[in-house]
Amino acid sequence: MKTAIITVGKEVLTGKTINTNLATISRRLNEIGIDVNRSIVIDDIKEEYYSILDFCDSDLIIFTGGLGPTVDDITRETVIDYFKVETYLDKNILKDIKDYFGRIKVKMEDTNDKQAYFPKNSIIINNELGTAPGVIFKADNKTIVLFPGPPHEMIPMLEELIKYLKKELDIKLYSKGFKLVGIGESTIEKALTGFYDKHPLVNVAPYASIGEIKYVFTSSNKEKLEETMNDFYSKFSEFIYGDLDDTLEGIIVQKLIDEKMVISTAESCTAGQLAHMITKVSGSSEIFKEGFITYSYEAKSKYLNVLQDSLIKYGAVSNEVANEMAIGLAKETLADIAISITGIAGPTGDTPDKPIGLTYFGLTHNGVTKTFKKIFNGNREMVRTRATIYALNLIRKELFK
Amino acid sequence: MKTAIITVGKEVLTGKTINTNLATISRRLNEIGIDVNRSIVIDDIKEEYYSILDFCDSDLIIFTGGLGPTVDDITRETVIDYFKVETYLDKNILKDIKDYFGRIKVKMEDTNDKQAYFPKNSIIINNELGTAPGVIFKADNKTIVLFPGPPHEMIPMLEELIKYLKKELDIKLYSKGFKLVGIGESTIEKALTGFYDKHPLVNVAPYASIGEIKYVFTSSNKEKLEETMNDFYSKFSEFIYGDLDDTLEGIIVQKLIDEKMVISTAESCTAGQLAHMITKVSGSSEIFKEGFITYSYEAKSKYLNVLQDSLIKYGAVSNEVANEMAIGLAKETLADIAISITGIAGPTGDTPDKPIGLTYFGLTHNGVTKTFKKIFNGNREMVRTRATIYALNLIRKELFK
Repeated sequence: MKTAIITVGKEVLTGKTINTNLATISRRLNEIGIDVNRSIVIDDIKEEYYSILDFCDSDLIIFTGGLGPTVDDITRETVIDYFKVETYLDKNILKDIKDYFGRIKVKMEDTNDKQAYFPKNSIIINNELGTAPGVIFKADNKTIVLFPGPPHEMIPMLEELIKYLKKELDIKLYSKGFKLVGIGESTIEKALTGFYDKHPLVNVAPYASIGEIKYVFTSSNKEKLEETMNDFYSKFSEFIYGDLDDTLEGIIVQKLIDEKMVISTAESCTAGQLAHMITKVSGSSEIFKEGFITYSYEAKSKYLNVLQDSLIKYGAVSNEVANEMAIGLAKETLADIAISITGIAGPTGDTPDKPIGLTYFGLTHNGVTKTFKKIFNGNREMVRTRATIYALNLIRKELFK
Repeated sequence: MKTAIITVGKEVLTGKTINTNLATISRRLNEIGIDVNRSIVIDDIKEEYYSILDFCDSDLIIFTGGLGPTVDDITRETVIDYFKVETYLDKNILKDIKDYFGRIKVKMEDTNDKQAYFPKNSIIINNELGTAPGVIFKADNKTIVLFPGPPHEMIPMLEELIKYLKKELDIKLYSKGFKLVGIGESTIEKALTGFYDKHPLVNVAPYASIGEIKYVFTSSNKEKLEETMNDFYSKFSEFIYGDLDDTLEGIIVQKLIDEKMVISTAESCTAGQLAHMITKVSGSSEIFKEGFITYSYEAKSKYLNVLQDSLIKYGAVSNEVANEMAIGLAKETLADIAISITGIAGPTGDTPDKPIGLTYFGLTHNGVTKTFKKIFNGNREMVRTRATIYALNLIRKELFK
């Protein structure tokens, strides 16, 4: 099924907005076995729609953008004109549009009536978060989809399209996946030599981000899907932290809540990033009460009881200091788990024996403290993000061991 | 000048990578007065290149992606084939490619020789951060540009293209801008009624992100540019914190360094995000020594000396508690500036008189404490980010008043 995604709008063409809709739609279509062949961004000028529709020989054409009720939103009428399909006036939607203009206290032009015309036999998808509904219709043996541009309006509609396509194309596809941390894509791919040939009926796709990676498995054969996932799991179980809906901080916070445990943080180089990640999760106030950002020697001594001697002898970025930070933190906060981070984020501050990226971690749990050392690649921001995710993974491994 | 940007690659089409190159290139072209009319993402299949090149009647066509030295990178040869331009073998680049295969210890196929052929009279742009150089050449009265896909390799090359285009098109354009905080795009645009008509020779473009906005001014007339910017400045000076190269945290840290001042933070709802932002700036350890994340009542009392009475009587999210947090923080850390944040990030935790998004700030400077109240829109993450940027803006206003 040849598929094109057409994004409409000056905002995207001028670079004011990054086109995330393409990635969102592609991924979901990919998961039900539909590949996107082309993606095009056009200006909202009538000739451009015509030119692109002449050009596209796709079976499925998805437009996003240009669906609103104002005069410069011309996607619906232009595409309907192009395909010369019969239309009808949807009175409910006309009322919605009139209400909208009433609410924003703008006089509605008569031309806006046209926004309530839809192709006969089209499927209208309600927009809970904006004014313009989505539309699916058939014309010239093609399936045409019109979605609004704002991602938060578009994304819920995408699920309706997926349902429609699965039914229409009689796709019985199952899609599941794993999220992994503590291992890189290249290491995984090397370990997967022969794996793809062994599981020909399952599509396996990796999606990488800094410090994390997810693998999505898709197949029409439920048994083969399970078999493939089990095989994958057996190879990488220690790095798998959850399924596609999970987040690393989410599973940690939930586990801490379940275990009625409290966690505290002492951060030097990451300076609050770890605490910020943990508290992203709603409800985290049950398990996170306090944290320290101890950037200076003095703060490490004053709040965490790190010895002056250790700071002078080993330096702030050292195994000894990470260890003392975690011990001091646990004692001060009485948390069940106390974690410390101290490292060199760069771009300055390295010494011959301490490179940029060198980071030490301390983890105190039930009175036992372990330390960890790691050298991270990348610029200042990447080093800090990798260190934060590494710390979350240390907590996860401690909690789920 | 009709311009098309063509991104090549399965990674973008499947949604594994978000197409940020489009936005980056569009913005820079826009700043020298060139609008992008179309942007197309294609698969790296020979027929797709041909089909797109047949379709595009653009004067400037920029390809990104598919330039590497391996067999599946076919952009250079395919585009050269399409335009039937004469080529030559660049021996230096052939040597670079051979070195590359030597380094990665992979046998170089003879077919890779073709990667060293370039159109005669083309401009070759060195790639300091990868293997494939960029190319600019002319064919059929069009300017064709070939760039690698990875943004960190592409972005430095883009500046060479801008220089080339300015010279080639005899563009003498000047481009400058302001960054603003504490004011929204719609408020600015309302205040700019008549402004655009008054300054017809200057292109003015806003680029918004959460909590911040930048305005870019472009013109071939240097005097008119200054005049327009002065007019803009006079309207919004209190919200302007710097020019396009500045960051809010960067100017704050620099000012603190210049003034030999130290800052400390006490965060409840933002839980480390403010400290994390301040310490994004390299060199921030000079001015930031310590910070507290006081999520619980107890932590607010223990470290910041917030009165139990205040917490019970007014609640943790209150003017009184923000005030006491800032006073206690300044006393504990002896910092020149102490800032506190306490709010309801949601999605739960609101009460009839305290809505989600309600946030209080305390700022102690030279022994004087001021408090601020604000209600932020959006989900949990947006509320926290807006609160963090609002706090940075409070610090800025205090430092630059």
